[in-house]
Amino acid sequence: MAMSKCNRLCGSLIGELLDSIENVLFDCDGVIWRGDQAIPGAPDVVNSLKKNGKRVFFVTNNSTKTRRMYADKLAKMGFSATEEEVFGTAYCSAMYLKSTCKLKGKVYLIGSNAMKQELLNVGIEQVGAGPDPITGVQIDWANVPLDAEVKAVLVGFDEHFSYMKLNRALQYLSNTECIFVGTNTDTRLPLEGGKAVPGTGCLLKAVETAAQRTAQVVGKPNRFMFNCLSSQYGLDPAKTLMVGDRLDTDILMGSNCGLKTLLTLTGVSTVADATEHQKSGCPERLGMVPDYFVESIAELLPALQG
Amino acid sequence: MAMSKCNRLCGSLIGELLDSIENVLFDCDGVIWRGDQAIPGAPDVVNSLKKNGKRVFFVTNNSTKTRRMYADKLAKMGFSATEEEVFGTAYCSAMYLKSTCKLKGKVYLIGSNAMKQELLNVGIEQVGAGPDPITGVQIDWANVPLDAEVKAVLVGFDEHFSYMKLNRALQYLSNTECIFVGTNTDTRLPLEGGKAVPGTGCLLKAVETAAQRTAQVVGKPNRFMFNCLSSQYGLDPAKTLMVGDRLDTDILMGSNCGLKTLLTLTGVSTVADATEHQKSGCPERLGMVPDYFVESIAELLPALQG
Repeated sequence: MAMSKCNRLCGSLIGELLDSIENVLFDCDGVIWRGDQAIPGAPDVVNSLKKNGKRVFFVTNNSTKTRRMYADKLAKMGFSATEEEVFGTAYCSAMYLKSTCKLKGKVYLIGSNAMKQELLNVGIEQVGAGPDPITGVQIDWANVPLDAEVKAVLVGFDEHFSYMKLNRALQYLSNTECIFVGTNTDTRLPLEGGKAVPGTGCLLKAVETAAQRTAQVVGKPNRFMFNCLSSQYGLDPAKTLMVGDRLDTDILMGSNCGLKTLLTLTGVSTVADATEHQKSGCPERLGMVPDYFVESIAELLPALQG
Repeated sequence: MAMSKCNRLCGSLIGELLDSIENVLFDCDGVIWRGDQAIPGAPDVVNSLKKNGKRVFFVTNNSTKTRRMYADKLAKMGFSATEEEVFGTAYCSAMYLKSTCKLKGKVYLIGSNAMKQELLNVGIEQVGAGPDPITGVQIDWANVPLDAEVKAVLVGFDEHFSYMKLNRALQYLSNTECIFVGTNTDTRLPLEGGKAVPGTGCLLKAVETAAQRTAQVVGKPNRFMFNCLSSQYGLDPAKTLMVGDRLDTDILMGSNCGLKTLLTLTGVSTVADATEHQKSGCPERLGMVPDYFVESIAELLPALQG
């Protein structure tokens, strides 16, 4: 049934799906963990997939950690994982600037120390990380000092985001040759108890509005993260499963790249969200309908250990 | 000729237009001054209009000054003007919260000390003005301290805008009963030499994106500023001329309120911009076509002094 989508993944379907794939890409928050707690059973799922000969990767829009930091967090929670299996937007945006843009020059970074570190790891210098306080009483905003070697502006999550940084980004981006990259467009970071804090998408929207330009976005749902991974490991999309909790990022990227897609209900999106996309008949929304869904990835465990 | 729009205002047309109106509303920056320099002849135009019995008002989206500060700036440049003739968004947003929203409670203010002052002038307390620095190493963003008396979030120009403020606004606005108001949506403040700095529209877009809500905007092109003025002075729209340099704010508000409209070319928009709107045939864009245009408001002078 070629048209069948959004199926509950259960019974013999689980084994059939697992037999048909070689690679599994997991989003992290809401999929294998929530905040600092592993989803019950998730480490066993990941470790069993590997024992069954599958290649496993971790693909996250979160830009606040380096690959090293992710590998440490994964290990602490009992996941068998290496740095090289982690594709976060801190690493991927550095790779994008290096490999795709062939950047010669520095980056003006609105982002975390982790992003600074990943840029350094590929040999790119940055200015901008950390606080950028207002000094003095009267600031000549249009003539703030700029670094002439800056050839790109990169926007990721930055708790030190400020009017000063927004203004510097505008001044750099007034040069139309200045490259403009964003890690991701997630507007909120959902937290336990229905709470949320502003996501990188808010900061990026402010910079895009000021600069009157649109950033090249590296994170899901854009293809770049999968391309980056695939260029290193040579994945066959048809034999790759993307597992995520968000329809508009994880599942859409999977669809965009021709992967099989699995929605897990331990995070943001619901089955009702998916069926609404499906019913809409709108071609752009069909990419947000997953092939399968599970309550939790723990449901894969019996088939893996059977 | 009912359909005739975007006419060069010259010759006898000037006197005819002036005879047909009782009130003139001037935008400020780009119209009567540029930065700290009066447009040559502008003070004479304003003062002569008054001598000829016209009522003159100053209507600006800029939220960084109180009415008092505007009156002082006008006087210094030689304009005959009183506080009561100034309708800026600092004053108008305070009036909006007071009169339209009937706010009982405090405002969380992303904005200037001038906005704080105008709120106080109508008896509204605010929290938020000034820097809101990050203290400590690890911040529990979703649980930052909030003021339980805050019943509205107001966003204007704020050089201390920061992730902390964006986050606080999100937390307040998570309560759907919290009122959400923005002064204006101008995305850039244009400066001399083709330079620009980020405008309030960038900050408002960030807060709207984080809160997943749309602000009620007080400034032009919205009707509220004219309504506010008209409720105090009883203006007849058909006998009122709006003079501005921006099609998307000044001229559009004029059209929205049934005023006569005059574009002056000493600021942002050009005649070419106006004719493009006119040619588009698009109903939403026709409101951005002025009735008349002049190179500078100084061109009104001979008719006033004749």
